[in-house]
Amino acid sequence: MDCIFCKIIAGQIPSDVVYKDDKVIAFRDISPMAPVHLLIVPRQHIVSLNDVAEAQVTLVGHIVHVAKLLAKQQGIAEKGYRVVINCGRDGGQAVQHLHVHLLGGRELVNGLG
Amino acid sequence: MDCIFCKIIAGQIPSDVVYKDDKVIAFRDISPMAPVHLLIVPRQHIVSLNDVAEAQVTLVGHIVHVAKLLAKQQGIAEKGYRVVINCGRDGGQAVQHLHVHLLGGRELVNGLG
Repeated sequence: MDCIFCKIIAGQIPSDVVYKDDKVIAFRDISPMAPVHLLIVPRQHIVSLNDVAEAQVTLVGHIVHVAKLLAKQQGIAEKGYRVVINCGRDGGQAVQHLHVHLLGGRELVNGLG
Repeated sequence: MDCIFCKIIAGQIPSDVVYKDDKVIAFRDISPMAPVHLLIVPRQHIVSLNDVAEAQVTLVGHIVHVAKLLAKQQGIAEKGYRVVINCGRDGGQAVQHLHVHLLGGRELVNGLG
């Protein structure tokens, strides 16, 4: 496996992990774009949102639910935050392993990209 | 109800609807920030991601799944797209009814806000 997120999940590359369960892991983005910038990643190697099967709807719901829980844990739930899934080239997806961004801790420009 | 999305769902305000099922409705954003800019909205009035109950994890998964299906329907699945949930003031949430943005049809800046 030449996937950097799979290596992080396997503990072969260090990361600043803030949450773990049997389905997902969450860690700080190494190039944060906001005071809080976490990535929530399924343990299973799924390339992108395009590759999520209908049977995995609950997994995606769980990932977003964890983003919401982490917003609370990180103290940004009340002020607000943004949850982003980039898919493919036009979406700016940088790592080919599905991940959800959680951003907060500052006022986010309403540009959406 | 003084919620603009509830009024759209009830058909009291016209909108360019692209998808409907028993749980969600999707329509074009009236101020599009990309050639394709859809909003996917649960029929149930939920204020924000903060207000989604744990029992509604499947609903959130379904909303994101619909975003993925609509990316395909709109012809942007292969080139790529971005899925965004803004929550609260710092997140830039403009309407106080949970909604998921689907953006595509151009290269999205990787700014994430």
